[in-house]
Amino acid sequence: MAAKRSSWMNEDLDALRDMTRAFMAKELVPNVDKYREQHHVDRDLWNKAGEVGLLCISIPEEYGGGGGTFAHEAVIIEEQAHAVDTGWGITLHNGIVAHYVLAYGTEEQKKHWLPKMASGEVVGAIAMTEPGTGSDLQAVKAKAIRDGDEYVINGSKTFITNGAQADLIILVAKTDPTQGASGVSLVLVEADRAGFRRGRVLDKIGQKGQDTSELFFEDVRVPVTNLLGTQEGQGFIQLMQQLPQERLIVSTGAVAGMEVALDHTLRYTKEREAFGRAVFGFQNTKFKLAEVATEAHIARVFIDDCIDKHLRGELDIPTVAMAKWWTTDKAMQIADTCLQLFGGYGYMNEYPIARMWVDNRVQLIYAGTNEIMKEIIARSL
Amino acid sequence: MAAKRSSWMNEDLDALRDMTRAFMAKELVPNVDKYREQHHVDRDLWNKAGEVGLLCISIPEEYGGGGGTFAHEAVIIEEQAHAVDTGWGITLHNGIVAHYVLAYGTEEQKKHWLPKMASGEVVGAIAMTEPGTGSDLQAVKAKAIRDGDEYVINGSKTFITNGAQADLIILVAKTDPTQGASGVSLVLVEADRAGFRRGRVLDKIGQKGQDTSELFFEDVRVPVTNLLGTQEGQGFIQLMQQLPQERLIVSTGAVAGMEVALDHTLRYTKEREAFGRAVFGFQNTKFKLAEVATEAHIARVFIDDCIDKHLRGELDIPTVAMAKWWTTDKAMQIADTCLQLFGGYGYMNEYPIARMWVDNRVQLIYAGTNEIMKEIIARSL
Amino acid sequence: MAAKRSSWMNEDLDALRDMTRAFMAKELVPNVDKYREQHHVDRDLWNKAGEVGLLCISIPEEYGGGGGTFAHEAVIIEEQAHAVDTGWGITLHNGIVAHYVLAYGTEEQKKHWLPKMASGEVVGAIAMTEPGTGSDLQAVKAKAIRDGDEYVINGSKTFITNGAQADLIILVAKTDPTQGASGVSLVLVEADRAGFRRGRVLDKIGQKGQDTSELFFEDVRVPVTNLLGTQEGQGFIQLMQQLPQERLIVSTGAVAGMEVALDHTLRYTKEREAFGRAVFGFQNTKFKLAEVATEAHIARVFIDDCIDKHLRGELDIPTVAMAKWWTTDKAMQIADTCLQLFGGYGYMNEYPIARMWVDNRVQLIYAGTNEIMKEIIARSL
Amino acid sequence: MAAKRSSWMNEDLDALRDMTRAFMAKELVPNVDKYREQHHVDRDLWNKAGEVGLLCISIPEEYGGGGGTFAHEAVIIEEQAHAVDTGWGITLHNGIVAHYVLAYGTEEQKKHWLPKMASGEVVGAIAMTEPGTGSDLQAVKAKAIRDGDEYVINGSKTFITNGAQADLIILVAKTDPTQGASGVSLVLVEADRAGFRRGRVLDKIGQKGQDTSELFFEDVRVPVTNLLGTQEGQGFIQLMQQLPQERLIVSTGAVAGMEVALDHTLRYTKEREAFGRAVFGFQNTKFKLAEVATEAHIARVFIDDCIDKHLRGELDIPTVAMAKWWTTDKAMQIADTCLQLFGGYGYMNEYPIARMWVDNRVQLIYAGTNEIMKEIIARSL
Repeated sequence: MAAKRSSWMNEDLDALRDMTRAFMAKELVPNVDKYREQHHVDRDLWNKAGEVGLLCISIPEEYGGGGGTFAHEAVIIEEQAHAVDTGWGITLHNGIVAHYVLAYGTEEQKKHWLPKMASGEVVGAIAMTEPGTGSDLQAVKAKAIRDGDEYVINGSKTFITNGAQADLIILVAKTDPTQGASGVSLVLVEADRAGFRRGRVLDKIGQKGQDTSELFFEDVRVPVTNLLGTQEGQGFIQLMQQLPQERLIVSTGAVAGMEVALDHTLRYTKEREAFGRAVFGFQNTKFKLAEVATEAHIARVFIDDCIDKHLRGELDIPTVAMAKWWTTDKAMQIADTCLQLFGGYGYMNEYPIARMWVDNRVQLIYAGTNEIMKEIIARSL
Repeated sequence: MAAKRSSWMNEDLDALRDMTRAFMAKELVPNVDKYREQHHVDRDLWNKAGEVGLLCISIPEEYGGGGGTFAHEAVIIEEQAHAVDTGWGITLHNGIVAHYVLAYGTEEQKKHWLPKMASGEVVGAIAMTEPGTGSDLQAVKAKAIRDGDEYVINGSKTFITNGAQADLIILVAKTDPTQGASGVSLVLVEADRAGFRRGRVLDKIGQKGQDTSELFFEDVRVPVTNLLGTQEGQGFIQLMQQLPQERLIVSTGAVAGMEVALDHTLRYTKEREAFGRAVFGFQNTKFKLAEVATEAHIARVFIDDCIDKHLRGELDIPTVAMAKWWTTDKAMQIADTCLQLFGGYGYMNEYPIARMWVDNRVQLIYAGTNEIMKEIIARSL
Repeated sequence: MAAKRSSWMNEDLDALRDMTRAFMAKELVPNVDKYREQHHVDRDLWNKAGEVGLLCISIPEEYGGGGGTFAHEAVIIEEQAHAVDTGWGITLHNGIVAHYVLAYGTEEQKKHWLPKMASGEVVGAIAMTEPGTGSDLQAVKAKAIRDGDEYVINGSKTFITNGAQADLIILVAKTDPTQGASGVSLVLVEADRAGFRRGRVLDKIGQKGQDTSELFFEDVRVPVTNLLGTQEGQGFIQLMQQLPQERLIVSTGAVAGMEVALDHTLRYTKEREAFGRAVFGFQNTKFKLAEVATEAHIARVFIDDCIDKHLRGELDIPTVAMAKWWTTDKAMQIADTCLQLFGGYGYMNEYPIARMWVDNRVQLIYAGTNEIMKEIIARSL
Repeated sequence: MAAKRSSWMNEDLDALRDMTRAFMAKELVPNVDKYREQHHVDRDLWNKAGEVGLLCISIPEEYGGGGGTFAHEAVIIEEQAHAVDTGWGITLHNGIVAHYVLAYGTEEQKKHWLPKMASGEVVGAIAMTEPGTGSDLQAVKAKAIRDGDEYVINGSKTFITNGAQADLIILVAKTDPTQGASGVSLVLVEADRAGFRRGRVLDKIGQKGQDTSELFFEDVRVPVTNLLGTQEGQGFIQLMQQLPQERLIVSTGAVAGMEVALDHTLRYTKEREAFGRAVFGFQNTKFKLAEVATEAHIARVFIDDCIDKHLRGELDIPTVAMAKWWTTDKAMQIADTCLQLFGGYGYMNEYPIARMWVDNRVQLIYAGTNEIMKEIIARSL
């Protein structure tokens, strides 16, 4: 059975895929162990990626971006899955942070930040989750209280991807703490502002190369022009509008991960012998891998349909919620099934399947837990 | 979330859908209980369907058919799922039996049989499975031994859809019992031949309206011109070529069934109250139905992709094997999840969900068991 | 691996088991098809069972019973599972209805009814569920309003086991409709009272031999001495106290059913050949049956522990709720796994596995749905 | 619902449990992070444990042991689960290595090694798995070839628990490489023998505190008196006899782990709020935890029955295979379900549930993969 070529691929994207794969093979893959050890990628990986044009690839050229679409992001996401890396926060930087600036920033904000994000001079992060509030964005406790021409920011955030390296943080905070959703605003905070402090890189069970961190804001003062957009209280709506793309990014990576897991496992089970024959020769192995191949194929057809829709601007919120929970759930199950077929080697970090398994787990939680996805879907029924 | 319109639908097919739905509402739905009681549809249902053009809809007009494609068959399959009927063997007659004749029959055979099948004068069946051999078609024991200008047929078959009503049976038999696959041929047997006998309609747990039967052949003599095609020993290859469409038919029905189950259950859980509120209001109900809705949606995207491919002649055997096991497995699980949400009513035949649950079960077995599908997929990996 | 002998078995119970098995082999098994056809057992099966001492076996001898314990009931439950019959409502009559009378009845009520129930002269039923209220016993709408020395009863009940044959119905009704739980009472209603009417035997997908019915009460008058016990408003508490034994009965049957399913499937897969070898020889079959055997064994150990506790009066409500949902869930899954290994024969009523599968399904619903069991357990955590 | 007290517990064991818990609280728990960092426990933990009598607790007193039974080991296993530590290889040292020596050693071997193992002077390991042969013990490639009064040992082993600290290794090797199972012998190898070399501690995804290592043997010479027992070729039989206890150890830990996971998750979900109420208040949480509580309870009843049987010498190989696959499978699922209820914190090493999840995974693989368990069970059916 030939591998499926995604409907949204074209020659331009083929070239991007080749380039990305070559870039990752040279700059990322050889360093993955080092990054996992130090719990962050090297800072200059960003600059190198900026040089070859991988950063902000779906941001218009007028702002220094690549002028591409979500399909370009999808190629990068898939290639990172192919490289079995979860340390580098490029998909967040590219597909999420830059797009908040593009979608809601003033012309001045876009002109100022996007070219720097495209070059790698600035690494972006978005700070939503708080120690006490989790996924409940209406209940954020971080405050950005206007004081003359400034906002005074207080609060703490956790589980922040790119947290240790970010130069620019989009902060979810209440500009009006007396309100719920309508009190929420997004505020740009530069990492060199007084009163901003990074906590340690969190000690996660997986995604070891990713500098997920806590962030602390203590009387941080930023000019009012750091409000993303021009109007307070739009944050919740802005989050709701951008979350679908965030979830599609997660899903796209999850599906590519299924295919990578299957590839690795087919190769291993055909080479490895047990009790005198290839592991693949056992009916249990064959049935398990037939199931994996089926679900990976169906997930591919489904995610391509989602990407096609997203490229046409037609992907609705419940459908992307379906994609988010189902693909991450299946990717986890597939990694689990595959790991088992490696026997003891499946538990060793030097085997990619081991890292895929432990790295995948958090996908069921971040970008909105899979339980919240089901709430969203149910509301649409 | 709006219901998805399948990519392969068009205005012509919309009209067919309306007509089919109206036909079934008038002729089929009011009689489903009666058919279940008597274990077969009324014989004249076939003739009425022939009159309005539902029979042999994907057979060229020159042979009396509707000149349509598999898309036309898909509409009928979906509408029968919508009618929650499994008694009427039209999809087998249309999509399988007629297509064997079309694909392998001599011009004379096609001219003779297809117009009669299109009018409803002749009901078709195909006899593969035997009491002792199950899915192993290379091991069939039925024999059609040439004796001069005739074949002398002996053997017995079981689980034959349309078995009690069929006028024409495509028999899988060995013309050369000393061979395996290469000894298999397909032979047309008219139901009025001496020595042919129908067993009782089998007492199944579900699909009660379907006249699944045993068939017995005792020294049945047919002219050698009853060989389907002109060459002995082609049967196994012919079966392999037609099985994908048979499996796609099953899958198409399974996916439509998921959507019907979801619809019925949404309606019920929103109306029915328990402990002072709608059953739909409980988080467990919402999560279960969000999961059902997700899998039904993904199955829809997937099956539409399969149908698109099939219409282009590009659907390969492993992919249809994926479709067969996965959609029937999921359809069963979905029916099970939905049934539970009906409480005790889910166990009553007057609630369609009850019949869907018990009727679905055999889909995991017929048209090649789901285990055999996994063997087929594994071979392609 | 030798079959496990339950901890609670003893020589007395061995003798009962032999007798019960012989009785069922003679009186029940040969008639199962007939009972399924007519949707009720023959009335005299009750009398025959009374004669040999199977009825009311755990009721004290002073009331005409067998003087046994729940262990005696368990033997009968297991033997009925072994006979693959679900038509005969003996376990309800014995283990539920008679025990309500024993536990809450006045001396007069016990003296009057229990000997008749033990002889088979009177068949018992209990009427809880109503068309509109399902499992929510606090919300029953049936009323028994005192009018002088009588109660005037109005209401309707559904899903009533033994409904078509019952001579004595324990009715759950509100004696004070202005109250919730505290307005509920249990009232004995004789089937020959004016205004009492039986609906049709419900058309279920399974348990075809069981005369599950609707019951209607229209101005039925019974003397106040028909109140079960001497005090109104005790019904809800009485139900809560008896439900554990009801659920343990269901669980005991479910576990025995697992063992029977495994036995049948081992036998079949070892005899039946496919592709040139015994179906049991395939690794998939072996793994599936190893899983079934494991879960059946664990369920056995667990249910025996529950029965031991129940015999000592120590089985608490959350533990029996665990038993109810888990054993019925697993029994269903096991029947499903086993059915699949029979191929097409698994769908035929003449194969017990087919009936086990469809009969098992309602166990997840009755005696409190499995969802309600989880609520009960959660409350205890 | 009160926690179940295991049938095999008694006052003596209560005292042991208190002592063990206190010992671990003082010596193990405060150091778990350090051990995880350094990938081994401190060497003197063994000596401290020896001093208080935890080592070799089920070895007769005449050999320096505690004179206890498997119940004593079970208490230690459960308490280690309670401490959420997987770094310390005490259960292997105690329950496996020492018991090989006890069961098959000559009097001299027992007198020499067991007291040292009981004091902590000697840490034990057993070397079965090889890079190329995995679970197939008949195919081991390591050789111990007799040369005069010595064996000359060559080969390599992997996945060896206690590998970096072991002073005594029981090596599975072929004394007759021309034979299969009957060529296998167990040979005692002291870690200070020339030609013995330890590889690195393996980089596992979990069980970070455990010094699982590769071991290399290059022309290692040991006296023939290092043969375990007095007869060559007994190794395979010895392994088969001891594997049940090894698997029961794994199962006992798995079941205790379920209970610990449930405890942690109940506490967390009752404290943690989301969307304005305790996470425990959501029906999804309640249902999931009701399921977890049910399976943990059933697993407890089952494992206690296994332990009871083992104490009576009645635990057979298929039953322990059932215990091994089912309890580890369920423990993994339970950890997974629980982790999800912690949201992002479930992915952080500082939350025990995170470590339990990743640590549990290898239990499905070691001590014989769960697939091999199913083979063993199937053979007994």
